[in-house]
Amino acid sequence: MTAAEETAREDAPWGEVTPEAARKLLVAAVAAFAERGYHATTTRDIAGRAGMSPAALYIHYKTKEELLHRISRIGHDKALEILQAADASGGTPSERLAEAVRSFVRWHAGRHDTARVVQYELDALSDEHRAEIVGLRRRSDAVVRDILDEGVETGEFDVPDVPGTTVAVLSLCIDVARWFNVAGRRTPDEVGALYADLVLRMVRAQK
Amino acid sequence: MTAAEETAREDAPWGEVTPEAARKLLVAAVAAFAERGYHATTTRDIAGRAGMSPAALYIHYKTKEELLHRISRIGHDKALEILQAADASGGTPSERLAEAVRSFVRWHAGRHDTARVVQYELDALSDEHRAEIVGLRRRSDAVVRDILDEGVETGEFDVPDVPGTTVAVLSLCIDVARWFNVAGRRTPDEVGALYADLVLRMVRAQK
Repeated sequence: MTAAEETAREDAPWGEVTPEAARKLLVAAVAAFAERGYHATTTRDIAGRAGMSPAALYIHYKTKEELLHRISRIGHDKALEILQAADASGGTPSERLAEAVRSFVRWHAGRHDTARVVQYELDALSDEHRAEIVGLRRRSDAVVRDILDEGVETGEFDVPDVPGTTVAVLSLCIDVARWFNVAGRRTPDEVGALYADLVLRMVRAQK
Repeated sequence: MTAAEETAREDAPWGEVTPEAARKLLVAAVAAFAERGYHATTTRDIAGRAGMSPAALYIHYKTKEELLHRISRIGHDKALEILQAADASGGTPSERLAEAVRSFVRWHAGRHDTARVVQYELDALSDEHRAEIVGLRRRSDAVVRDILDEGVETGEFDVPDVPGTTVAVLSLCIDVARWFNVAGRRTPDEVGALYADLVLRMVRAQK
């Protein structure tokens, strides 16, 4: 794969899901879960949205929960990847924290349907799958917590409660998926810039 | 009603809903909607949870949407009341903003099932009911925005983007309903105190 192809694959939502039929079913499942909720959606609904038969769905996904798990896994992998990329972008703790917030907000605004499914339907996962996802969430939390710890250590941040502030920073970004409106006044980039500034204020960053 | 009875009525969740059968059905509906989502819940499910027959439910609520509207209306009235009470508590903009955040967080943590239904099922309301609820939400937003405007005017706050910061403050509090865990390490009061501090930092309050 060339670098350009790699970028195109990563930019296309669910580009990592193959074959095409499996990808279409997953896109249909995200739309259905976001619109009506996981429990109100049947595999028949999902197959219908994808223009396929229920039998064709079962070739790719044995259960509805398997679809939810796939969506949740890809979404959480992406969230972790976004935070890790921001952390690896170099610069001071302030710069890396701002970049983490900007890119995390952009994802939650731009992909709000997926984010809502990923964030609100955790209880519908099997115990085993939920444990796996909780593990990924802990790793995402740790990226932000480590940046805060580092900023406190260097004296750049003033944060009395690092674990609590970590929860608040991630929560602020995640809730964008609930209220963000594509027809609203702000673009994902504008919300990201505003929130990065608010988070730097939360940690009293000395730039 | 004596003052003590008045207090007891207000403290009891859904104490304002009478008669008793209507209140029990509403409590059952909140639990069912929070657990499985609005669209996956039937009026039969709700009647069953309340230990009543579907026919008994229809005496009090003509449709499932009427139950959701009642829950959403009471929840939004309560949210507005909490913010107005904090604003009326007197003191500087910093003190009133901190009190608004503390009490709003306490409600979203302590009543997280109700808050999730109220916040996540807006799309399931009829157009007329949604318009009514949106009106209440605008009034809640305005309470916070006015405190921010006042603090900026007196020079107590430094807030370049008051509308955006208003959204962020309320969003931070609302998302507590998603992640708050009664078995977790923090009490609603502790989260409220932490968040009040974080919000005062967001507005660069000069105390």
